[in-house]
Amino acid sequence: MDAAIIAVGSEMLTPQRVDTDSLFLTDLLNARGVEVVVKLIVGDDRQRLVSAIRYALSQARLLILTGGLGPTEDDLTREAVAQYCSRPLVFSEEICGSIVQRFQRMNRTMAEVNKRQAYVVEGAVVLPNGGGTAPGLWVEHEGRHIIMLPGPPRELKPIFESQCLPRLDQLLPPQVIRTRFYRVAGMPESDLDQLIAPVYKQYTNPATTILAAAGDIQIHLRARCRTEEEAEALLLEVGTPIEELLGDRLYSRNGNPLEATIGEMLRDRGMKVAVAESCTGGMLAEKITSVAGSSDYFAGGFLTYSYEAKTALLGIDPEVLREHRAVSEPVARAMACAALARSSASLAVSITGVAGPGQGDETEPVGAIYIGVADKDGSLVRRFQFAGDRRRIRVLAAQTALDMIRRRMIGSTASPWHH
Amino acid sequence: MDAAIIAVGSEMLTPQRVDTDSLFLTDLLNARGVEVVVKLIVGDDRQRLVSAIRYALSQARLLILTGGLGPTEDDLTREAVAQYCSRPLVFSEEICGSIVQRFQRMNRTMAEVNKRQAYVVEGAVVLPNGGGTAPGLWVEHEGRHIIMLPGPPRELKPIFESQCLPRLDQLLPPQVIRTRFYRVAGMPESDLDQLIAPVYKQYTNPATTILAAAGDIQIHLRARCRTEEEAEALLLEVGTPIEELLGDRLYSRNGNPLEATIGEMLRDRGMKVAVAESCTGGMLAEKITSVAGSSDYFAGGFLTYSYEAKTALLGIDPEVLREHRAVSEPVARAMACAALARSSASLAVSITGVAGPGQGDETEPVGAIYIGVADKDGSLVRRFQFAGDRRRIRVLAAQTALDMIRRRMIGSTASPWHH
Repeated sequence: MDAAIIAVGSEMLTPQRVDTDSLFLTDLLNARGVEVVVKLIVGDDRQRLVSAIRYALSQARLLILTGGLGPTEDDLTREAVAQYCSRPLVFSEEICGSIVQRFQRMNRTMAEVNKRQAYVVEGAVVLPNGGGTAPGLWVEHEGRHIIMLPGPPRELKPIFESQCLPRLDQLLPPQVIRTRFYRVAGMPESDLDQLIAPVYKQYTNPATTILAAAGDIQIHLRARCRTEEEAEALLLEVGTPIEELLGDRLYSRNGNPLEATIGEMLRDRGMKVAVAESCTGGMLAEKITSVAGSSDYFAGGFLTYSYEAKTALLGIDPEVLREHRAVSEPVARAMACAALARSSASLAVSITGVAGPGQGDETEPVGAIYIGVADKDGSLVRRFQFAGDRRRIRVLAAQTALDMIRRRMIGSTASPWHH
Repeated sequence: MDAAIIAVGSEMLTPQRVDTDSLFLTDLLNARGVEVVVKLIVGDDRQRLVSAIRYALSQARLLILTGGLGPTEDDLTREAVAQYCSRPLVFSEEICGSIVQRFQRMNRTMAEVNKRQAYVVEGAVVLPNGGGTAPGLWVEHEGRHIIMLPGPPRELKPIFESQCLPRLDQLLPPQVIRTRFYRVAGMPESDLDQLIAPVYKQYTNPATTILAAAGDIQIHLRARCRTEEEAEALLLEVGTPIEELLGDRLYSRNGNPLEATIGEMLRDRGMKVAVAESCTGGMLAEKITSVAGSSDYFAGGFLTYSYEAKTALLGIDPEVLREHRAVSEPVARAMACAALARSSASLAVSITGVAGPGQGDETEPVGAIYIGVADKDGSLVRRFQFAGDRRRIRVLAAQTALDMIRRRMIGSTASPWHH
């Protein structure tokens, strides 16, 4: 069964608001194998709402509308659904009574406008609302299901969970959902897709979703089967060749971000990491310490954005800086080695480069980044060339530095972003 | 003119993702008096996309599609628009050449799949993309306008601002829009609204929008008039009393973030700032150095998340740490003073606190943050108690530290978050 969701309300069309009710609903629908195929956001306009309902029901057998059940004249969800179904709205003494009671419990008198909320589309199942005055409604119409829910999450969530899901489960075939959640560093999305598409394109079950951010790609596999064994077998069948193709670029099988993955590795090995950052100015350390408990393995950081600071904080020889410039292999190496020597770390990583904008260093263009790693076995520096604005170059540099730490720990001699 | 927006991509239909491109677009469209009447989110499915385009164009004369212009077979926006318009896709040697060049600049070879991005709907205006491989496209069809933009905000935003808005303005009646963009630090949103609502509620033109983030509130005033003089007079009429009410909590009149504001102040005064961060782990320095050119005034940073690092990197007396614990007024002061002494800075700021989760320090609860400032005139430490999760507490601490720097420079004796 496919589903469509319409968020109703002119305020949801302003630049300030996003519809988040649909995320909650999608999560629970997906878990049952119901795909959300389209979402709409429509203002408080009856004709537009009727058109949206007509379109949505041309796309899906299940339609959930959120919002527009309030007491004011702007609240038009009931009216629009009634118009679409060509059914009258009928007044429910029972609902009206429960609204009156609700006001009485708050020592208030029901405003006349609230009577609007006691009207229901003829033939609808009423879904009582413990947290507000507007009940939800469930209408079956020409083999399709239309659910109307109040917009406030604290009202919508309990109604959907306790009253809609049990009804929905009766409409669905018995099934089991199992997922896998891979993460990959140091690969452009297009290369990754070219690599693994031949595998996952063969299957519609499990369904594969790829989400790409700078230097970090997520791969979700979701299998829907009648039994747990079948689902796990399918995930193994598709997941194993994907894992083999990705090799050491795959850093997480449980969805954890790279900073959490290296955090676990450092803790398991009893190691500590220190950083020396130039152009990223703290972004790498901020990522590492964003993980709760990172004080166990973060040995500190030196933020040396200028020549002066590189000398004052890390003791880098001014002669080396003059000769090679700050964005260079020798300076990246010296920074990593100094961070190792001047802290209690067993592993240190350095970043120096040109984040831009502007013309770059005298010798290196914008996007040129050197990353150094030093530990008791020695040191290693790699050069990268990234594209994008200042923010993106910094994010790529920090993410790649995390991957350099990971690769050093697993003994990988390959570089991030290798082909 | 009414507008519809379709966000394209199956990932936008997952429980993890919301469409935010449409917020940016809505803001700029509204500023021109163009109302967004419906928004849709559709997956990577050609037939569903064509249906969505048909429905959207039944509702609005302007349609903007975001996403689905990537290089993979899942990227179907071009194909769907071509099908809707019954026009062929034609290969553009020029676009292909610019994609090849882009890869060359990154020392990479263009993947074969990227050729897909060189196809355009026949008759479309090509909107070059400085930040990525996929150009935007603008198609006029049966008196309606269809704009296709790449999904990543850093690509979409510049294309829309510099190439779409000027074309759009030619389609709209002449009008003048003038805006003011205030930013305020160290105030809860509800307090701010209570303070200034009596002023701005009197006016529908200029329209006032308030956007609150942790420790940072934006106030937008937007006047739409026939002449520039009228618009500026209206902004003065509403802006002046708002500025007076906000006093020294107002830190920006041009929309610049706090890190840019203090950057300008430091540069104007020929000063340099250094940081010593504990629980924020680099977030403060990352913010300061996110501003291009910050190397002029950022004198470096010490990330001392552990007792050991505080002693090794900053020379904090282990005795002081033992006696007062790391999250304390004396340690915050010692950190700021040491950062001043060990760098070329004329002003240093320190942060030590409990970002959580967990039960906090032995003496301080989660959310307790000490911020210290030191300069040639001495030092000052303030204690704050923030609420929220780890991320929010760290953001509030970093933002408040920036405000402490600002207040030190303007000679304000008041604390951030004072009532």
